[in-house]
Amino acid sequence: NAHRIAVIPGDGIGKEVVPEGLRVLDAVGQRFGCAFHFDTFDFASCDYYLEHGQMMPDDWKAQIGGHDAIFFGAVGWPETVPDHVSLWGSLIQFRREFDQYVNLRPVRLMPGVPTPLANRAPGDIDFYVVRENTEGEYSSIGGRIFPGTDREVVVQETVMTRIGVDRVLRYAFDLAQRREKKHLTSATKSNGISITMPYWDERVEAMAPHYPDVRWDKYHIDILTAHFVQHPDWFDVVVASNLFGDILSDLGPACTGTIGIAPAGNINPERHFPSLFEPVHGSAPDIAGKFIANPVGQIWSAALMLDHLGEREAGAAVVRAIEEVLARSEYRTRDLGGTAGTTECGEAIADAVLSG
Amino acid sequence: NAHRIAVIPGDGIGKEVVPEGLRVLDAVGQRFGCAFHFDTFDFASCDYYLEHGQMMPDDWKAQIGGHDAIFFGAVGWPETVPDHVSLWGSLIQFRREFDQYVNLRPVRLMPGVPTPLANRAPGDIDFYVVRENTEGEYSSIGGRIFPGTDREVVVQETVMTRIGVDRVLRYAFDLAQRREKKHLTSATKSNGISITMPYWDERVEAMAPHYPDVRWDKYHIDILTAHFVQHPDWFDVVVASNLFGDILSDLGPACTGTIGIAPAGNINPERHFPSLFEPVHGSAPDIAGKFIANPVGQIWSAALMLDHLGEREAGAAVVRAIEEVLARSEYRTRDLGGTAGTTECGEAIADAVLSG
Ligand SMILES: CC(C)[C@H](C(=O)O)[C@@H](O)C(=O)O
Ligand SMILES: CC(C)[C@H](C(=O)O)[C@@H](O)C(=O)O
Repeated sequence: NAHRIAVIPGDGIGKEVVPEGLRVLDAVGQRFGCAFHFDTFDFASCDYYLEHGQMMPDDWKAQIGGHDAIFFGAVGWPETVPDHVSLWGSLIQFRREFDQYVNLRPVRLMPGVPTPLANRAPGDIDFYVVRENTEGEYSSIGGRIFPGTDREVVVQETVMTRIGVDRVLRYAFDLAQRREKKHLTSATKSNGISITMPYWDERVEAMAPHYPDVRWDKYHIDILTAHFVQHPDWFDVVVASNLFGDILSDLGPACTGTIGIAPAGNINPERHFPSLFEPVHGSAPDIAGKFIANPVGQIWSAALMLDHLGEREAGAAVVRAIEEVLARSEYRTRDLGGTAGTTECGEAIADAVLSG
Repeated sequence: NAHRIAVIPGDGIGKEVVPEGLRVLDAVGQRFGCAFHFDTFDFASCDYYLEHGQMMPDDWKAQIGGHDAIFFGAVGWPETVPDHVSLWGSLIQFRREFDQYVNLRPVRLMPGVPTPLANRAPGDIDFYVVRENTEGEYSSIGGRIFPGTDREVVVQETVMTRIGVDRVLRYAFDLAQRREKKHLTSATKSNGISITMPYWDERVEAMAPHYPDVRWDKYHIDILTAHFVQHPDWFDVVVASNLFGDILSDLGPACTGTIGIAPAGNINPERHFPSLFEPVHGSAPDIAGKFIANPVGQIWSAALMLDHLGEREAGAAVVRAIEEVLARSEYRTRDLGGTAGTTECGEAIADAVLSG
């Protein structure tokens, strides 16, 4: 029974790193005997937009809604399409319409990856950011009045729902409970964002007693970013609103060396809809077309996808292969101080899976 | 003609570091012959709240509105008063009612301060965060419907006005223009926060042509936090909304070693109202009462206040005294790996001002 995967390369380096992810998945198929059926789609890209005037066809949900997962590259080409148009017309649609309410982002210091932090070694940094992925600060409610005048006012609503907050908190508490340290950190800003954020805190406090074995704490987002830099070893599972999770899941990987290796799972835990797996980095127009992008974020995303599909052994093998290859300097891409190209790095990881 | 200063120690370590700031200002008075008149107020503290049921007296504006500046410690004691009550009843009131629309926060790697970043030396990191300080994400508009049910929804409005955005951008462009590098970075998130943030970008683009000699760029807040860690040398002046500026001005100082030394000026550039000077760190209940807090943030805030009062020579002397003392390990507090107490460090800086 083949896993049916919708493949969406998107824009920029998405088109360069997705093939490396597929290369590794092919290797996984050979090594572990799991079968994949890939369908590739050209929508959710700015090229598609320029041709059709919209980011996706009207029936996009029918086209990919029946797949077991979406393997996604990156979207955005601001030179031709403003980011809020391209993103709201694709990625943010997927997250919302497929109710992928958890954005799961591992942060781990890998062997061989130079970290900007002093005195940190692999093993010191190993945690998850659990980001709310459908509501909060990313709302589409708001607008502008008195445009072009001195009275101009622009407003945008942050929206938190009981259902939306509780379900992501539950996922995070569950995850923390399964881990060794059983430690949950909540990102807040209730001292400044005085309506929605105290509500977030309230829901955390209401849920905590159901997880008596999970130790939890909370920090305001400002000092939390400081702690990421100064004490990344403090964290195990960090749960955050849509915006705060977005920030923390770029900052965390930066502390471990590069966002080029960071993966993300946009997950619908109930499996009513396909989940989407993508690297945290975007389309990176500045280095697109040169085949120098780091494919590890995309490949690690494939590992997260394998976990989600129930292929846990294969997922673990891919992560091991990544670690093996990163430990050897000759396959590191430029963002890691190496000289390897996208393909060389991808091939090395695929080989490591095959021989691993 | 004495400068009239309203002194508000507030809560926690605010009460421990403010006296050190005053000690240094006394030294400044002796050394530079400038005169200060200090009035100390017990409001804007949680003790005051517990006694009076509100953070400040009804006539607080009359009591401090005529002063030349406010020298502020920190507010907040969450064990007895929720943070959003104590902060919105004091600090956020000051910022808004005294129209302190610029929050100016220098980020500088000082000699002798251990940084969590590898391979960074004094001189490498030296920039300003200019934070919008009166509107944006810190709005008081919003509320809750269907409380206690599964339909519960909580909303909060972000509000940006043409006047509010333009004036802080102008301040930031002006500052960049006066600096050697003439480089302005704008923090945005227009790809996700799709109504207010594209507006912010639009206003930056409208203002830039008036400053042809200022080189400017923009980054989404998620990758910008990554760049703070990976490339802090890229920045000169960083302008940001209220929330983004809040985050960046804790993260920046963390990258330079500690938020214990970071100062802030809450500035009304037109001088219609007193400006307020405070350390970036808060009341720090965990270390309060032990006199181990680092007083440098408070003392550096005094230097910013001196600049604002036109005592530039004295302000520069205080910064030099801080640098001198930090370079000598015996006066460093624990957050810097030293063993000195709050008072020892403060006395050393005051002495350095006197003999400097
Ligand atoms: C205490 C809090 C409300 C405040 C803020 O968020 O503005 C603080 O973090 C600051 O940066 O001055
Ligand atoms: C591209 C952008 C809209 C997106 C987000 O903010 O969610 C990205 O930064 C991410 O983290 O997936």
